[in-house]
Formats: sequence, structure tokens, C-alpha cells
Amino acid sequence: MSSSYGKNLRISIFGQSHSEAIGVCIEGLPPGLRIDMEELMRFLSRRAPGHNSYSTSRKEPDKPEFLSGLVDGVTCGAPLAAIIRNTDTRSSDYEELFDVPRPSHADFAAQMKFKGAQDVRGGGHFSGRLTAPLCIAGGICIQILRTHGIEIGAHIASIGEVSDTPFDMVSVSADAFKAISDNSFPVISRKRGEEMLRLIEKVRAEGDSIGGLVECAVLGLPAGLGDPMFDGMENRISAIVFGIPAVKGIEFGNGFACAALRGSENNDPFCTDGITIRTKTNNHGGILGGITTGMPLIFRVAIKPTPSIATEQESVSLSKMENRKLVIRGRHDPCIVPRAVPCVEAATAVAVMDALLENKKYQGGE
Amino acid sequence: MSSSYGKNLRISIFGQSHSEAIGVCIEGLPPGLRIDMEELMRFLSRRAPGHNSYSTSRKEPDKPEFLSGLVDGVTCGAPLAAIIRNTDTRSSDYEELFDVPRPSHADFAAQMKFKGAQDVRGGGHFSGRLTAPLCIAGGICIQILRTHGIEIGAHIASIGEVSDTPFDMVSVSADAFKAISDNSFPVISRKRGEEMLRLIEKVRAEGDSIGGLVECAVLGLPAGLGDPMFDGMENRISAIVFGIPAVKGIEFGNGFACAALRGSENNDPFCTDGITIRTKTNNHGGILGGITTGMPLIFRVAIKPTPSIATEQESVSLSKMENRKLVIRGRHDPCIVPRAVPCVEAATAVAVMDALLENKKYQGGE
Amino acid sequence: MSSSYGKNLRISIFGQSHSEAIGVCIEGLPPGLRIDMEELMRFLSRRAPGHNSYSTSRKEPDKPEFLSGLVDGVTCGAPLAAIIRNTDTRSSDYEELFDVPRPSHADFAAQMKFKGAQDVRGGGHFSGRLTAPLCIAGGICIQILRTHGIEIGAHIASIGEVSDTPFDMVSVSADAFKAISDNSFPVISRKRGEEMLRLIEKVRAEGDSIGGLVECAVLGLPAGLGDPMFDGMENRISAIVFGIPAVKGIEFGNGFACAALRGSENNDPFCTDGITIRTKTNNHGGILGGITTGMPLIFRVAIKPTPSIATEQESVSLSKMENRKLVIRGRHDPCIVPRAVPCVEAATAVAVMDALLENKKYQGGE
Amino acid sequence: MSSSYGKNLRISIFGQSHSEAIGVCIEGLPPGLRIDMEELMRFLSRRAPGHNSYSTSRKEPDKPEFLSGLVDGVTCGAPLAAIIRNTDTRSSDYEELFDVPRPSHADFAAQMKFKGAQDVRGGGHFSGRLTAPLCIAGGICIQILRTHGIEIGAHIASIGEVSDTPFDMVSVSADAFKAISDNSFPVISRKRGEEMLRLIEKVRAEGDSIGGLVECAVLGLPAGLGDPMFDGMENRISAIVFGIPAVKGIEFGNGFACAALRGSENNDPFCTDGITIRTKTNNHGGILGGITTGMPLIFRVAIKPTPSIATEQESVSLSKMENRKLVIRGRHDPCIVPRAVPCVEAATAVAVMDALLENKKYQGGE
Repeated sequence: MSSSYGKNLRISIFGQSHSEAIGVCIEGLPPGLRIDMEELMRFLSRRAPGHNSYSTSRKEPDKPEFLSGLVDGVTCGAPLAAIIRNTDTRSSDYEELFDVPRPSHADFAAQMKFKGAQDVRGGGHFSGRLTAPLCIAGGICIQILRTHGIEIGAHIASIGEVSDTPFDMVSVSADAFKAISDNSFPVISRKRGEEMLRLIEKVRAEGDSIGGLVECAVLGLPAGLGDPMFDGMENRISAIVFGIPAVKGIEFGNGFACAALRGSENNDPFCTDGITIRTKTNNHGGILGGITTGMPLIFRVAIKPTPSIATEQESVSLSKMENRKLVIRGRHDPCIVPRAVPCVEAATAVAVMDALLENKKYQGGE
Repeated sequence: MSSSYGKNLRISIFGQSHSEAIGVCIEGLPPGLRIDMEELMRFLSRRAPGHNSYSTSRKEPDKPEFLSGLVDGVTCGAPLAAIIRNTDTRSSDYEELFDVPRPSHADFAAQMKFKGAQDVRGGGHFSGRLTAPLCIAGGICIQILRTHGIEIGAHIASIGEVSDTPFDMVSVSADAFKAISDNSFPVISRKRGEEMLRLIEKVRAEGDSIGGLVECAVLGLPAGLGDPMFDGMENRISAIVFGIPAVKGIEFGNGFACAALRGSENNDPFCTDGITIRTKTNNHGGILGGITTGMPLIFRVAIKPTPSIATEQESVSLSKMENRKLVIRGRHDPCIVPRAVPCVEAATAVAVMDALLENKKYQGGE
Repeated sequence: MSSSYGKNLRISIFGQSHSEAIGVCIEGLPPGLRIDMEELMRFLSRRAPGHNSYSTSRKEPDKPEFLSGLVDGVTCGAPLAAIIRNTDTRSSDYEELFDVPRPSHADFAAQMKFKGAQDVRGGGHFSGRLTAPLCIAGGICIQILRTHGIEIGAHIASIGEVSDTPFDMVSVSADAFKAISDNSFPVISRKRGEEMLRLIEKVRAEGDSIGGLVECAVLGLPAGLGDPMFDGMENRISAIVFGIPAVKGIEFGNGFACAALRGSENNDPFCTDGITIRTKTNNHGGILGGITTGMPLIFRVAIKPTPSIATEQESVSLSKMENRKLVIRGRHDPCIVPRAVPCVEAATAVAVMDALLENKKYQGGE
Repeated sequence: MSSSYGKNLRISIFGQSHSEAIGVCIEGLPPGLRIDMEELMRFLSRRAPGHNSYSTSRKEPDKPEFLSGLVDGVTCGAPLAAIIRNTDTRSSDYEELFDVPRPSHADFAAQMKFKGAQDVRGGGHFSGRLTAPLCIAGGICIQILRTHGIEIGAHIASIGEVSDTPFDMVSVSADAFKAISDNSFPVISRKRGEEMLRLIEKVRAEGDSIGGLVECAVLGLPAGLGDPMFDGMENRISAIVFGIPAVKGIEFGNGFACAALRGSENNDPFCTDGITIRTKTNNHGGILGGITTGMPLIFRVAIKPTPSIATEQESVSLSKMENRKLVIRGRHDPCIVPRAVPCVEAATAVAVMDALLENKKYQGGE
């Protein structure tokens, strides 16, 4: 355990890269909500591989089949379960890996944990493919949050040394999100996006891979969301975002930069126009004491380079306990950052939805 | 909710800065363990204020009173509850804050959440004082983990622009931890520590504050600790560490730096001497796929500058909905990073203990 | 684990019969609620021993001290912690029990579980004394539920072979509850109550004890409370009520009697007056499919006779693994059923409050 | 919420009677366990309808499809998901029920809860059909428990006024379980079983239904299983068993009978042969203080008569708020007690497995 997340909206993700299917069971969806399946499919297609030079050439339709929880496309209060069949799988690509773990993959750690019983094919339950059911859950939550006036958007903040224009931490708007998702490549600056694509192509040609950053913003959050101590918004978001493979860091607001600042520089002055209260700057990233202030909630996550690279690497034979050279075969993304963008949005949507339901408990007068 | 953390070892923290007492209830401690109270007090004293120029001049004995869970100092299987009385409290310092929230404090967000009912005195439940019961729980876990050969150490990685020598990510040892905790100021390089102290003193004299980084390492972890997806070690640790006030970012291994690297640079080759398996480098920070590899688990957290500064700041009157100047009175640390060091150790100990108990379930043959 | 209960309102109970204190930490109380301390003390006094022939002669003031969660008697959103000091304890009464477990007490089972580390004095964490913090939590919930128009009442349904008048399952009213709590002995029929008291006195004189039934009703519940499958109202209530020592059975509505009935006898016809919908009979005890129907929620619990009796019993010496005669000394209730009545009310209040908060999540339009 | 159960072994059940599929996601299964699929199918067939006069004439193959969690039939540490397709469904049978709730069914309560959004077809998520995924989970746990020497058996204790021979509470053995499951009708006394079948046939012919009792025993449990207060074995078992539709009561050991007994009658004397410790009688049903004693764990559950009967009943039109006669069409079991027997075993197995994993945490020296 645990491939489950959430207290009020609870998602349980199952499946391995090469099992019969992967899927998600979602408990706690409010009843009576119509899910826009076309919009959901558009959202899922942003995560899907096979479109570009930067992703694996596998074709995954990733079309979810809804097994329960809906009546004529409307949530009925029962748990919603959806699955995606695994079809384009080539198990033979992975046979060697049972004995020789891939550097910086979960293979070795999982082997130690599950004592050799784990499903090593395609990374098993640790495969990036498991973000597809996360995106189903997140895509549904995004639709629900929109009805509350809450919008979530993310973009590639950087790939290697190439950086995109960052979000304006004070005045980022949903229009910016629209512009990003209209791009086939999720960046704000198309010019920088083209540089990134060239870099990815170069890296791919060299049999290498590259990491990057994703920046995510949540708009329209009411002040007062999140809970003290261990259920603050930072805790909630990081607890789900680190479930996306390859994430190695997260920072909120100005994040690590705040460590070098003085209080007089870092503090965000409050101001009011007589109607609303806001802060003039947003170094706090919309969260103070774990609780939203009503300013844009902004954070960045660090994504490591895909560990599966084409060049020969050093590993060990677990059975013989001796050093061994390893060449990874199969098809792998040279850069997973673009596909991580909707995953970060999805994870955030689930975390925000869970916090929102928590807050509903205390509304309405008792 | 939730001021509770953990599934196997569950801590519930209660109290406000100026309530009768603060405390913690710990469920799930294995029975039959003797707690070394002197060692625990030494650990708690590392968090206590009042010793140095860099911390508030309040005297807090922070001596815990154990109410339950022990028989003659040995855990008995029942929940362990411990409290610390609040004595040196000056409520009048905080009266204005009910109406005029302190910039970058939790005041405003909490007001929005609890609709004016929250305890505003001294930050209430959001006070840094609530890390004292966290340190009680963590200090106990540290003692238990030691019996499993697991050691946790942290140091100030930087304050402002002054950096300490980092941990050697491959070969950091418990000796390094010992050297740090023998220092009154928790750094590796005494010279850099003196620079930091001078910087803090300077900032204090200017009525300002300053942020910093804490680096933490866990040694002796078995490979295979942690769980897939949302209960990976990164998820578990970040979910508790963000419960320490002022933490705004966390990164594991080489963290944010990995975003600029290629796979060929970032991947950690496996190697063996025929007996054990390790990696030559440790960019992964001891965690792959959320699960420990047996290499040192290393992470850094970003701590923002104390928001309570002596200089006049801009805020608003919530009752009058108009802009207002605010001067914060009372005693405040110009830099909380030194006191955050044992808190990060404590939080980590609780997270590791919880993961360790999870793993125990699957040992011994079924 | 687990001495905690609840998902939305979470109570964590700690303490042993002879530890420094017993207490409860309550998370999730809505902020801004004034607690009527006098009413709470009256509720707690119904559980307190020392008043009557039927309870132990120990004097327990059981006055709770509130450590956190309140500002001037009003909930502030932070966890509420309350403790009761243990004062009148005579440890020497229990020394023999460490080796010779009392028949039908938790001594032996706890010894097996905690491998000899458990606190054997007074039953330790298994003592009936631990229902005092449950009653603090429940007493607070009762006050909150009342503001929602929800009333909880219980009475002694029987002691030995002497039965009280049962609740009218269709038309029981809060007036009936008032009449019961105005009695010093919680029964509907005073005549039967006097018979019960004579029976208890007789049993006490014989150095024996006696069991009984408690019947509990909840009025004013909205239809639609409770959740499918494992969070139905029966599941929720039984999961907490079995936490009261000595409870060995629970039945809802006509309960075990339904096993001998036909559907045509057991089914409760629906009817309407054009405004509300109700059932003509209430064999279902206000719960169908785990969810409230708006009819009175009614259940009964079986309480076994106090296992501590004065007559000599057969046991074993754990250290010598040989049979041994045991005479239990100390002061013990000949019948705990009267004191169990408020405990059942308290447990029910916590369960209902938790379900009510769950339902709040889905109100108000999404 | 919540259609999930368990803390260490967590099952999440999804599906509605007429959704695409029903299923279960199981987290926390120890890795490396081979599941005997033939044995599992035999177990599931005991719950399946269509074999006898006492069950509905629908044919449900109920053959589970395993989607994840297994590699070549062996658990791999990832969540195990299994589904059963819904095929033989006749939605038209249920159209009227959307407006006119069936007496003593969940229809009305669910309508109130889900505000008209719920899936009314076949009872939706409240259908007895949802016990099939529970039996998949339970059937797997039964196999695991057997490797620990733990056996679970149940039988029909009574139908209407016809009672089976009860289990011998002190010396019931696994042989008794074998004899029961060798019967097509799960009773100890074949003669009484024939009487029960005649009674069911008579009731069916009259268009009526009938209730009954199920008695369940668990053998081979170590002493020390279960946890204090709210995670006692009674709490754990009742919290899952009430998830089986139609259960209205549960009692452990001598249960409700203890309410009429004296302590001197009800207490179970300990005795030893120098090697093991046991009790001479077993009124406590193998549980003291919520924790197992090593004696057979025995409980009984009350099952109400199937609310779907052929005779005309009184109900209301929800849309018109007026009284209405209702005749339920479709195919329904006149008595669900026989099919409830494996469901009770399955639920118990899940609860015991969860408690067993909890205990594993504290083994092996810390």
C-alpha cells in the first residue's frame, strides 16, 4: 500500500504496464454530475504517447471503459470504476530486466520490496502508464472544479536549460491556460517550445534523455481551503504529485528561492480595494499555514530525465551478484516532461477536490 | 482536519500557542520499548528557544508530561499521550492581530477557514510551537529506529547566501551526524556556521529575518521500504515535512538539479562487490519508484524567512476593509532554520517508522 | 491500534486505568460552537460511579480539563483535547493479576497481544474507565446534534430477566428521553426500575454480577444519512459501540426477531400524508441499505455481566503454567448496565455526527 | 463513501446491479502468494444463484476476470483488481421503482441520499449482487489464512423457526466445516436442512420470503489478534458484516443470552494442561477486550427476509406524494440465508486478514 489517495474523494489505482488492464476506482464523487466524455477524452489525449518526436512510438488509444458509477453519463453516487485495456505490449522486451535492474528505474527497489514476486514487465505497477487512470480521475475532477469556478493549468517550465516564460504569480489567468492547451506542445512561449523540441530531438538522436520542470497554477480557489499541519495544501498536493513517476522535487510560491531571502523581501503585503483582500506579491504561492489565501496557487515540480536510455549502462546481475553491462531495448520517451503536464494537472485536481469536499463539511451553519 | 499523520504509527497533535497545553497522542508504538527520557530531553532541547542570539528570548522549558502509554518508562501498547503546558504566554501582544493579519502568516487564511472562530493568539494551532509535540513523537521514533540500525541526521544547508558543506550523498555516515549534534549550531563546517550566526545577528539588528535550507539524511534503511504511487517515501516524507511551518519546498537526491540533466548524467549505475548491491552515485537520493534502494536517503527543504519582522508592514483591517500599517510586537526568531533542523529529523523519523511498520506486515512468510 | 474512530469527526482516546490521566483528542469539530460545560458535566455525571448501590464505591470526580481547541468555551477549529486525571487508584489491588488473568476479562488476551508489556493495573487501556473520554466526545456531539434537531436517548431495556417497557418504535419522542434522564435510574417504567435495583442489590450481596440490555433511539435524523456497504449506519454504530467494554451483541430494528419472520410480516409499508413519507411500522429500525429513512433509528446492545465477581474462580498462573484459584479483590460494579446507558448514547452521537459531516460534503449544489 | 474496508488489507468494491460490471480492487495482499483459481471458483459457486429452488432463476456465471495484481496466478504486490460482467439484466423490470420505492428495500433511502441520481435498476449499488466481489476478496483471504492454520466456516443456524444444530463452541473443528460445505445446502443436520428447504419452498409458493440466522466460526486464530477499543475483533467483524445486505444483528459468543446471566454463570474459567491455556467454556466467543483468546471465535448474524415479495404491498409515489399499491415483478430469492453463508465467511476472512496484518507489525523484535 498505497495506490490510493484521498479522504473525501478517494481514488484507488490498479494495474501494471502489461496486466490485462489498468484502471481506477473513485469513491466520493458527488451524485448528479454529468461527465463530458468528449472533454475527458481530449484531456486524456494530452497525456497519450505516439503523437510526437518526443514520445514513444507505441500507439495507446487509452480509451477508458466505464464499468460503474454512472447512469447515462451522470454520476449516481456509487463508486466510479474505469479501466483501460493493455493491448500493445511486448513482454519479450523486458525479459532480461528481471535479473538485471535498469539504473534509476524502480526495478531493483521493487525487487527488494516484493521479494522477486513483482511484475517486472514494462515497470509493472511502477510504470508511467499508471498515470492514465490518474488522469481519468483528475479529468473528471477538473470538470467538477470548473463548476465551482476553479481552473487548473500547467506548462513546461523548462527542459534541460531551455526555460519557458513563467506564470505571472499575481495575475495569471485562465486565458493563459487556454493558450497553453491550444498548443500541441504545452508552453507559453512558442519560440521556447520550438527550442525545447529541438533539444529533445537532439537528445533522442544521441540515445539519451532529458529532464525538466512543470509549473502548475490553480485559479479561483476560495480563501480558507486546506487544513492545518499535515493536511495543508502543500502536504496534500505533494502527497499525490510524488505519485507521478520521475518527480524528485516540489516547491510552492517562490519555493527554494525563499531560502535566500529576508522576511522584508519575502513577505507579501496585504491590500484591499474595500471589497476583496489580496496580496501585492505572491511569494507564498497562494498558501499560508497550509491554507489558501485566494491568490493563485502556484507550484513547480522537478522531473528527472527518463532513466531508460539507449546507451549501454552499468548494472548488476541479481542472481549472480556480479557486475553486468545493460542495454535497454524497447521504445521510450526521450523526455516525459510534456506528458507529465496533464498528469500534474490531474493530480492537483484530485487533491483540490478532496480539500474542497473537506471544507464543505463545515458550511451551512453548524 | 488533519493534525494527524500516519497509518501504522499514528500521531495526533493538539494545542494552540496559548491554550492550556499542547501535546501529542501516538498510536501504534510497539509494546515493550524503553524510552530513554534523558536522550529525549536532549533531543527536545535542540528545538527549544532561548539559548542563542538567533532565537526568541522566551524561555520554554518544554518539558513533556507523559500521561499514558508507558509503564515505568516502557511502552505498554496503549496510546502514548504527552503534553507540554503553556506558561510563558503574553496574550496582549497579539490583540491587534485578530483584525489585522500579519503578512505571510497563517492569520488571514485561518480567519477565512474558521470564520473568525480561530485562536489568533500566538498563531494558535498554526504556531511553530506545535513542532514541540512533533519532536516528542519524532524523538521517540528516532530511538526506536536506532535499534533497527537506522540513523537520521540533518544540518543547516544554508542561511541566506551562506552555505554549509553538503552531505556526501554516497558516503555520509553517522559520524557526521554526531559531529553536527555536538555543535551548538547544527552545521558541518564550523567556519560557515560562524558566518551564518553573524548573518543572523545582522538581520536581527535590522529588524528583519532570513530563510535557509535544511538537508536531511537517513542511513541504514533497508532496500524495499516505501510503497508504490501515493505512499512512496517522497510522498510520505513530504506529507509530514510540509506540516512544519515555513517549509515551502522539498527535493530528494539531486532534486531540482535533475531537471537540467540528461539521463546519461543523472542515472546512477548499479554495482556490486559480490555481497551487497549499491549505486556508484546517488542522484536518486536513496529512493526509486518511491522505494528505498539502501543508499542514503537524502533530501533538502526550503524554509522561508520568519514572517514576523519588526519593521512596519502593509496589511488590512478585516473589520473595516481598509488598508492598514502593521507593526508586529512580541518576540520572534530572526531565523528559524536552526530550530527547524531537529523538527525535520523528527518528522522524518515518524514517516520512516510508519513505512517500516508497513513493511513488517509482509515479513515472515505469508 | 486503534483507539481512534471516525473519518470526518475523529476521536482518539488515550489513557489507562492507572496512568497519569485518560483523555481524548477530537479532530473535525466545526468551529464557532459554544459548548455548554454545565450540560456536559451533567451528562458525564450519568456515567460516573459512586452514587448508587449498583456501582463501585470509588469516588471519581471525572472532571475534564480542556487543554486545547476552545477559546472562551467556543470551538476554534483546532483539535480539542480534554483529559481527566487519575487520582483514586490503588495499584496494590491488582498485583496478582499480572500473573493470574481474571476470567472473562481482557487480561489474558492483552497479555498475549502485548507480550507482557501491557499495563495490567485496573485493566489498563481496556478499563471501563476509558468510556469517560468517550463520553466527553459524545457529550459534545450530543450538543451539536441538538442544534440540528437530532436527539439521542437510551434506557436499560433489561437487567437479568427484568425488562423495562420498550421504546415505541414508530412514535418514540424526545419527551420519553427527558423522562428517562430525569430518573436517577435510566428506565421508562419506574416500577421495573425498582425491581432491577432490588435484583442488582441481591446479586451484589451474593458477590455476583448481572448483565442486561440497553436500547437506544435517535430521533430527528434526516432521511439519507449513512453510506453504502461498509459505512452504513449499522456498520458505523456497531464499529464504535463494540468499543464499550462488555458489549457482546447489537441488533437494529426488530433485529434477531426478523430471522423468524416472513417478508410479508417484516416489510414496513410506506405511506404519506402528502407532505412527508414514513413507514407504518418500523421493523427496519430507521435504516435501509445502511441509510436512514427518517424513521426513529433504534437498536439494542447486549451487555455481559461484570466479569469481576467476589467469588473464587478458576484461572491459571501464566508464569508457572499451572491451574490456580483466583479471588478478585477491589471494588467493582455488580452491574454496569446503568452506567453503559450514557456510554451508548455518547458512542451513537459520535457515529451520527461523523455520518452527518460526511453528508454535508454533498450538499449545496455540486 | 464508503464501499471500502480495511486498513492493512483494503478492499474497494464497485458496481451496480445493472452497470457494465461489478468488481473489487484489493490493496495490501502479500506478494508471492499463488491463488488457487479452481478453489476460488468453488467458493464463489456457493454464493451463485440458479442452482436451487430457494434462489432466483437468473443464471449468473459470476466468473471473475482478473485485471491486475497477478503474474501467472501469483500475487505480485500491486493491487489486485477483478471484475464480473453484468450480462443477464432486464432493466425494464425495474422502471416503476424509480418512483415507487419497494418496502424495506434501500430504494427510498438511496433516493433521499443521492437526490434522485442513484441507479435504481436492480437495487443499483445496494444490490445483493455486490456480495460477489466481496466473495472474490474473501475467497482469496480464506486461502491465505489457511496457510496460517486459520479456518473459517459457517452454516445456516436457522430459517424461520427451523434451527440447525449449533456449533460446539468449545470444540468445533474444521471437519465440521468440511461436512457443511460438502452439503449442497450449508447445514450441519441434513434432516433440519430438508425441513428448511421445505419451508422455503412453501414460502416461495405463497409469494412470500423468510429470514434466518447464520452462525460463523473461526478456528486456529492465535491469541492476541485484534486491537483495543474501536478495532476489536467484534468491531472489525461487525463493521464488514453489516455491509452484507439484509443483516440486522450480530452477536458474539453467547451474545444476547449473556444479558440474562450472572457473572458466575457467564465467566469462562481458564485452565491449562501445562502447555496451552484455554477456557473451559466459551461464552466469550473467543474474544475478550476485543482481542482473541485462542478459543474458537464464534458469532451469529440475523438475516431479514428478502423484502422483494410477490404479494401486493403498500408504498408511495415519490413524484405525486400519494399512497400507491406496488407489485414487485422480476425474479427474487424467497430466502437469501443460504447464499449469505459464504458471504459471511468471506467478510470474516477479510476482517481477520486485516487484523492479522496489523499484528504482523509488532512481531520480530521491536
